[in-house]
Amino acid sequence: MDFITHPITFAVLALVGLGFAAFTYVEVVRRPAGNKLMVEISDLIHDGAMIFLKREYSILAIFILVVAVLIVLFLPYGAQTAGAFVGGASFSILAGFCGMKAATRANVRTAEAARSSGEAEALFAAFSGGSIMGMSVASLGLLGIAVVSYVFLFSYSLRSESGFSAEAAAAAILSGFAMGASSIALFARVGGGIYTKSADVGADLVGKIEAGIPEDDPRNPATIADNVGDNVGDVAGMGADLFESYVGSIVAAMAIAATSGTYYRNRIGWMMLPLTVAGIGTLASLFGIVAVRLMRKMNPASVLRYATCIATLLMLSGSASLIWALGLSAESYSKWGPFWAVLAGAVAGIVIGGATEWYTSGAPILKIARASETGPATNIITGMATGLLSVVIPVVIICVALLVAHYVVGLYGIAMAGVGMLATTGIIMSVDAYGPIADNAGGISEMSGLGAQTRKVTDGLDALGNTTAAMGKGFAIGSAALTALALFSAYQEKSGLTSSGIDLTDPHVIAGLLLGGAVVFLIAALTMSSVGRAANKMVEEVRRQFREIPGLMERRAKPDTARCIDISTTAALREMIAPGLIAVLLPPAIGFLLGKAALGGLLAGATLAGLLLALLMANAGGAWDNAKKHIEKGNLGGKQSAAHKAAVVGDTVGDPFKDTSGPAMNILIKLMSIVSLVIAPLLGGGLF
Amino acid sequence: MDFITHPITFAVLALVGLGFAAFTYVEVVRRPAGNKLMVEISDLIHDGAMIFLKREYSILAIFILVVAVLIVLFLPYGAQTAGAFVGGASFSILAGFCGMKAATRANVRTAEAARSSGEAEALFAAFSGGSIMGMSVASLGLLGIAVVSYVFLFSYSLRSESGFSAEAAAAAILSGFAMGASSIALFARVGGGIYTKSADVGADLVGKIEAGIPEDDPRNPATIADNVGDNVGDVAGMGADLFESYVGSIVAAMAIAATSGTYYRNRIGWMMLPLTVAGIGTLASLFGIVAVRLMRKMNPASVLRYATCIATLLMLSGSASLIWALGLSAESYSKWGPFWAVLAGAVAGIVIGGATEWYTSGAPILKIARASETGPATNIITGMATGLLSVVIPVVIICVALLVAHYVVGLYGIAMAGVGMLATTGIIMSVDAYGPIADNAGGISEMSGLGAQTRKVTDGLDALGNTTAAMGKGFAIGSAALTALALFSAYQEKSGLTSSGIDLTDPHVIAGLLLGGAVVFLIAALTMSSVGRAANKMVEEVRRQFREIPGLMERRAKPDTARCIDISTTAALREMIAPGLIAVLLPPAIGFLLGKAALGGLLAGATLAGLLLALLMANAGGAWDNAKKHIEKGNLGGKQSAAHKAAVVGDTVGDPFKDTSGPAMNILIKLMSIVSLVIAPLLGGGLF
Repeated sequence: MDFITHPITFAVLALVGLGFAAFTYVEVVRRPAGNKLMVEISDLIHDGAMIFLKREYSILAIFILVVAVLIVLFLPYGAQTAGAFVGGASFSILAGFCGMKAATRANVRTAEAARSSGEAEALFAAFSGGSIMGMSVASLGLLGIAVVSYVFLFSYSLRSESGFSAEAAAAAILSGFAMGASSIALFARVGGGIYTKSADVGADLVGKIEAGIPEDDPRNPATIADNVGDNVGDVAGMGADLFESYVGSIVAAMAIAATSGTYYRNRIGWMMLPLTVAGIGTLASLFGIVAVRLMRKMNPASVLRYATCIATLLMLSGSASLIWALGLSAESYSKWGPFWAVLAGAVAGIVIGGATEWYTSGAPILKIARASETGPATNIITGMATGLLSVVIPVVIICVALLVAHYVVGLYGIAMAGVGMLATTGIIMSVDAYGPIADNAGGISEMSGLGAQTRKVTDGLDALGNTTAAMGKGFAIGSAALTALALFSAYQEKSGLTSSGIDLTDPHVIAGLLLGGAVVFLIAALTMSSVGRAANKMVEEVRRQFREIPGLMERRAKPDTARCIDISTTAALREMIAPGLIAVLLPPAIGFLLGKAALGGLLAGATLAGLLLALLMANAGGAWDNAKKHIEKGNLGGKQSAAHKAAVVGDTVGDPFKDTSGPAMNILIKLMSIVSLVIAPLLGGGLF
Repeated sequence: MDFITHPITFAVLALVGLGFAAFTYVEVVRRPAGNKLMVEISDLIHDGAMIFLKREYSILAIFILVVAVLIVLFLPYGAQTAGAFVGGASFSILAGFCGMKAATRANVRTAEAARSSGEAEALFAAFSGGSIMGMSVASLGLLGIAVVSYVFLFSYSLRSESGFSAEAAAAAILSGFAMGASSIALFARVGGGIYTKSADVGADLVGKIEAGIPEDDPRNPATIADNVGDNVGDVAGMGADLFESYVGSIVAAMAIAATSGTYYRNRIGWMMLPLTVAGIGTLASLFGIVAVRLMRKMNPASVLRYATCIATLLMLSGSASLIWALGLSAESYSKWGPFWAVLAGAVAGIVIGGATEWYTSGAPILKIARASETGPATNIITGMATGLLSVVIPVVIICVALLVAHYVVGLYGIAMAGVGMLATTGIIMSVDAYGPIADNAGGISEMSGLGAQTRKVTDGLDALGNTTAAMGKGFAIGSAALTALALFSAYQEKSGLTSSGIDLTDPHVIAGLLLGGAVVFLIAALTMSSVGRAANKMVEEVRRQFREIPGLMERRAKPDTARCIDISTTAALREMIAPGLIAVLLPPAIGFLLGKAALGGLLAGATLAGLLLALLMANAGGAWDNAKKHIEKGNLGGKQSAAHKAAVVGDTVGDPFKDTSGPAMNILIKLMSIVSLVIAPLLGGGLF
């Protein structure tokens, strides 16, 4: 049975996944791209996205270099860990690059398919584009961890140092890989969130309100930036977020297996088990994606739902079989223990996704829509109340999953619940990335005037995309929380806190807890202000172009879209520095000043506050958005009614909530946890 | 020296305070109450307030009875604890009753003083009214604890039971007293918050917007309810909140001294020390109040500031002298230890008050006002960002106070920091209760047409009241957090968790932590929705009266104000049941199901999330309010400008934030902590 859990097996599986992604890419690019205008617009979006990525990568290169040098200088196994760190960062970048490339090629082809072949083909084109991101994220995550494991755990055993067995050393190096993934996620998700909302708000404020031209009008210089933003935020940002969760939960499980006394009888077996489950999940996702191909004539919503179900059931049955076959057991835990943990995680993911869907498209949005009739204030209050309420079910489910997973197989189980939730990342990311592609296809149809019939098809696909996006956001938050808790568990094991405890009767821990909560609110405040500042710059530039470019409004001249892209890009990258530095520097500061137990408190406080705020912001934002859409469908007076005006206010408030500050919380809690895990060997009781 | 720390001394001190309050009441009532119309209006407000109190008390009687029976049946020293519980509840009711009685008599006399004698006399009338509440809260708190201590600690020693020394038994009974205070606070603060905002929003929506009549117009049937609401929410609600904090922090310190091994050498001395500091603080507050009398010709803002400073300095120097004279020491802690803890708490209170003032009236409100120029959405976003940012300084200060206090004298120090912050409750509550009286005086001036000159005086006093209210809110939140942490410390001692720990590496504790955070968001959602529902009922009733009462708009008929008062009262009392039950039942549920450590996690999570949310809501709400007022002063276009309209939206959103849901958090975290402390002897490892 050994070959099943050998890294080479996972590397092969990952290469199969990447091959499938490459095949799909070729297939997508070969599709007809439509008329000249469509190609021109899509090229502008594609080029804009690539400009952002290139600028982002050049800043990232400096950041990665600095951190890598620090790792080499201060950490045990520094050179190897730094190498893994650079590897994790590179793989995340590569996944984002592939996904963006595919998405910005698939959007125009989806529009063309909607025009020439109808809904089924358009759905397939958009989903194919998304599946390239999905398979890239899952396969590159698997490949990276497999390679690092093969090199440091299988091919040559590391020299033991004080407090480090060979396995613990390999786990430490693996956590470098995860930290690399996290660093990219910070830049991609926070920067991406600021980019997309500054472009969106800037385009809307001047275009729709001041100049009175429709959304996605080609005369508006910020329109291209807005469409680039959809890709930057929802494809690259979301991809980096899930890549981080995926890698983080696997590495956390491996680290716990490597360092905890509980699993000593078959350490390597326990360490490879999360990779096994992730490998099966990737294969299951691949089957799910192929199933979409076969079912494409059915109702689009059902297609995506069935494909996800198929993949999840395949993953669960495959995991059950292999866990049974491997027969790992430890102390009092049965060999079925890991399976129950995986099941708990997978079920939690489904329930959280469902709860998110309910709060952002069920009865609550009707209530918000009705509240809009009495003005923007009641719209905001009702939306806030909905967001506050929406945290309860996900938190309760996470608690249940946590307790079940821990009961069946200890701290390791918590990490395995995360792996269980994330094993099918391949299909979940595919479904999620489908959304912005369909959205872009709608924008391209509008800008190139493809007519009402095409627009109806893309609108239908776009509406479905909103639902999948809401579920995807819920899933991203749930998985981020579980990953943060898994990394927190790994931190406890590695820093020896499982024996000394992180004791809330110690005021250092309480202080850490309170500060962890405060930093979450601080980052939320900073990112929200960033959007405002960046949007203001965009507004000024769009106004300038309308004023200074002669003939722009009469369609005789073209807007300078590159300048707007440059503004969003510059703002996003600059505004990201302060939150990024805080997230990276706070854990070592607290660890050195107040000690490793207080740092544990910080992580717990940040995870709690981050989870609550992320759910509140994502769900309130999604609910406001859909309440507005509900009115736009002609309910309660439809467009131009007072209720619609009020609902637009809620939607605008919701934008930075759900697309900037909310998602930033996911990254923040994971990044702080992984930084703590990496620096754990350096920490003691603290100065105070 | 023994007589200094004897309960009789504190009882005498408390009686002096109550005597002073009674003297002030007589003095206030003897002031001229103005013309017939003024008296009539003020009687309506007074009667409305009394109706609410009576209805509230009849529901409370049932609640108190049920809880008292449960205490008798299940707790050790049940009969005595139940007696103390009823006593705590009664004293809080009495304080609220005195304060309301005084406030609803002082309001019209303030208006009359503003008309006939000018600013200085009006300030003094309003402050005198407030000082009756202030001295009642401080003196009744002191008296109650002194009496319970005298009976159970001094006059006859309780029979020791398993795990209970005589001192621990007395402390358990004292925690019953604190729980009584907490139960009333729940009803007064949450019910009061719902009352005041439903009346406010209901009156404004129909009166100002639909009927086009000004605020406080006597034709509007909801105007009286609105003015009653100011008293119910800001006088009685705030009073019950501070009474709870005051009693809670003293009892927490006494309970720690009674049960911890650290203070065994002079247990009674350590137990009486918090009463000593509170007694000095009450005397110092009395001097501060007298100082206002002497300084009344000075600038009003300076008068209130100086009086508070004088009281604080007197309290600190008095405490230092007595702590030095008593010379208590324990283990490695010096005899100065308790003083440093008291100082840390007092300084923290001042800094938090100052930070709150900055965020709700400094540069941030100018930013929000400017953001209003681009519409309500940017106003809301900027206000939210301000609120999120405003948590940082208070949280950091609380952490510093916590660490200092614990360093100098252990867990006991945390509770003493709370006592230090709250010792001058007498003057702080006086300054705070001044606000709603000045506000009411403005309303009465408007309704009885006292003219522009009078209105200018009351407006000036009202503006000052807004500042003191903001500082008072910050103080209430800070003290609630410290009290919750103190009670949490006492819970740890009493349940033996200081030795076994509340370990965050145990997933039960993490689950408790997450659920504690979720319940805070749940209660915030429930209270916010309650305001919406109650305001809707009010809107319907006001519309009905305008429609069905002939001649109302032409001032030929009078509105049925009693009906509106009834609606607010009924709604407030009904809507409070769900949050109340959750707050009271969740701690035992978690304690029995997941164990006492998980309950510790619940308290920590609730305290963290409650503190963050309370700060966010209070400061965002206050900032929106003052941004609107800034525009109304003529800036950025003044009243009727687009910016003003946008700012009104922010102000309306902020209303339930700052006056209902935010303050409810204060009560929630303290109530859950005190319930846990009371049921601690019944708890074990939990079912799961």
